[in-house]
Amino acid sequence: MKIPSIAISRLSVYARNLDLLDQKGVEVVSSVRLADICGINPAQIRKDLAYFGQFGVRGVGYYVKELLFEIRRILGLDKEWRLGLVGVGNLGSSLLRHAQLVMNGNYTFVAGFDRKPKRIGLKVEGIEVAPLGDMNRLIREKGIEIGVIAAKPGWAQQAADMLVKAEVCGILNFSPIQLQCPADVFVENVDFSLKLDVLRYRLISAGSRPRIRSKSAA
Amino acid sequence: MKIPSIAISRLSVYARNLDLLDQKGVEVVSSVRLADICGINPAQIRKDLAYFGQFGVRGVGYYVKELLFEIRRILGLDKEWRLGLVGVGNLGSSLLRHAQLVMNGNYTFVAGFDRKPKRIGLKVEGIEVAPLGDMNRLIREKGIEIGVIAAKPGWAQQAADMLVKAEVCGILNFSPIQLQCPADVFVENVDFSLKLDVLRYRLISAGSRPRIRSKSAA
Repeated sequence: MKIPSIAISRLSVYARNLDLLDQKGVEVVSSVRLADICGINPAQIRKDLAYFGQFGVRGVGYYVKELLFEIRRILGLDKEWRLGLVGVGNLGSSLLRHAQLVMNGNYTFVAGFDRKPKRIGLKVEGIEVAPLGDMNRLIREKGIEIGVIAAKPGWAQQAADMLVKAEVCGILNFSPIQLQCPADVFVENVDFSLKLDVLRYRLISAGSRPRIRSKSAA
Repeated sequence: MKIPSIAISRLSVYARNLDLLDQKGVEVVSSVRLADICGINPAQIRKDLAYFGQFGVRGVGYYVKELLFEIRRILGLDKEWRLGLVGVGNLGSSLLRHAQLVMNGNYTFVAGFDRKPKRIGLKVEGIEVAPLGDMNRLIREKGIEIGVIAAKPGWAQQAADMLVKAEVCGILNFSPIQLQCPADVFVENVDFSLKLDVLRYRLISAGSRPRIRSKSAA
């Protein structure tokens, strides 16, 4: 059974909020309360968890520590994963700077690569930018599992080809390019202009554009 | 009928690739060829398009210009939308710099806000950073439809509350916080650590971690 990506990403939202509850000393939480904290429907939480087994006690709720432990195990959050960044420009640098903040210590950037000679040797957040030619060696030496592409569209595919050749297991793609990769390399795309398109579609479907109305009324 | 977000985001992938085909002078494309270019299953394309009507000619394929026009109309890509950025730090600045590149001219940042006094008045890509106190006025004056939150987790909810008060229609959220917003405000989350969690889950499900193996073998 293939579990939908969206269910997996909700699972990691549950883990974060369970972690916060645990830190506050909360021992038991009802599915209604957990749903409320996560901004998700209670039935959805029960359905998502049912993919992985039987959790919670009817009439009581979930034991916070126990559910957190189980979700962490399911998601592999109990191990640290190592990332290599390709493209250390504006976006790439910002990813390195934000990494600690947003990645909850589960992921660590251990190398960065760029094709621009002027960037080679620069240090960003303790990561020294290496030339593309060092990718193969460094990915093996540093045990990098996931390649993160923050390259401009013009060389994002080249970056992906090099990462595949260096045998990373998966790629997180920030470029707006649909990458062509072998079927056994997992690719997840972070494309915020697609997100904007979804948002815009929802707004159009919901009715007109109030900003425009208020402007022409002025 | 509520159309899944994932189908809408695929629609915008189709539009991009149809645009490229159109620029190359291609007039007709089969669903198999289009699927191949987009890295998607042909049956999926037919299913996604079926949400919106009858497209394509059996045994011929899709007329590129016609399908592109229809998808653009469906997604509202024929109009420009205006964005306001809240949080002009590393991530926010990088978004402003990348906006032109990745947004295909469909979205324009027209204002930026920050709470740090030292950032007020700075110009990033032609956008002058304004204080939070100016948000209400500028969002109305500049006709901003969508608020983009690149604030740190500590004040992301405050940023959302202010955007809601200023009556934006939708929010694109880059912070790792699950925002609490009224039901009539549409929120899309761009959370790359969730994407990493999905990627990691797929890797774990698929088998072991080759990087680790090669390390211990070395």
